Amino acid sequence: MLNKEDFMAEAIKLSRESVKNGGGPFGAVIVKNNKIIATASNRVTIDNDPTAHAEVSAIRIAAKKLNTFDLSGCEIYTSCEPCPMCFGAVYWARLDKLYFGNSKNDAKNIGFDDSFIYEEIDLPFNKRKIPNIQLMKNEAIKAFKDWENKKDKIEY
Amino acid sequence: MLNKEDFMAEAIKLSRESVKNGGGPFGAVIVKNNKIIATASNRVTIDNDPTAHAEVSAIRIAAKKLNTFDLSGCEIYTSCEPCPMCFGAVYWARLDKLYFGNSKNDAKNIGFDDSFIYEEIDLPFNKRKIPNIQLMKNEAIKAFKDWENKKDKIEY
Repeated sequence: MLNKEDFMAEAIKLSRESVKNGGGPFGAVIVKNNKIIATASNRVTIDNDPTAHAEVSAIRIAAKKLNTFDLSGCEIYTSCEPCPMCFGAVYWARLDKLYFGNSKNDAKNIGFDDSFIYEEIDLPFNKRKIPNIQLMKNEAIKAFKDWENKKDKIEY
Repeated sequence: MLNKEDFMAEAIKLSRESVKNGGGPFGAVIVKNNKIIATASNRVTIDNDPTAHAEVSAIRIAAKKLNTFDLSGCEIYTSCEPCPMCFGAVYWARLDKLYFGNSKNDAKNIGFDDSFIYEEIDLPFNKRKIPNIQLMKNEAIKAFKDWENKKDKIEY
């Protein structure tokens, strides 16, 4: 029977292989019923996809495999504390638990923006490095009213 | 010449069409040099992909089209303030500016978890709804040392 150190060792192995293969130093695995159902490593620069972090990719693979957007009952093991993008993905996927190896400060120390993006979240809109500007809210809300009025919607 | 209200109107149109087509009430467009280069709406339940939010999908499409992970010089117009996942994606993609319509509180009012996930970020690991547990950090750091020692790496 595999244990949590075995799964984390696999995520770490992926992170080290990724460096050799030209990706970022990050790996992740998703486990269900004590079996790995998805593995991924960072492919941002390989695939020219800024969202291709290990966790996001592993979640997409697991969801495709299980044919559901709801990964309740699964756990993720990631070689590094998730950035805000991957943290959000873990929550939207409703994973049961998250195990991580390196911290976001470790990531910062080798030049990755994880910590910086967490800091930006806490700033008011007009102080952020990427300006966040609200526009046409009276028009935008109509889609939310459509949603509220829809009878056969699939909530998530 | 199109202006920012035209681009936001397009994002809002996508969000309303999405409700009709069985997706969530969210749309986004990415603009470069005053031209729309990518459009997307929320397809979480349609594609069984918890990461298929409008912003993440639009970023993936734009990056593929321009063949780069760096979308500097582009702006995103989204019908709703991004969740942490999409906020992170906007930063990783290095977009110049973000325009949004509805707020995260508007999203909360119709049952979406955006606000909740932002609140979770500010909690200590052991207070979070999805437990975050650090494991094997002395092993995990090896990938970061590999990265530091790699001479031909592509930084991002």
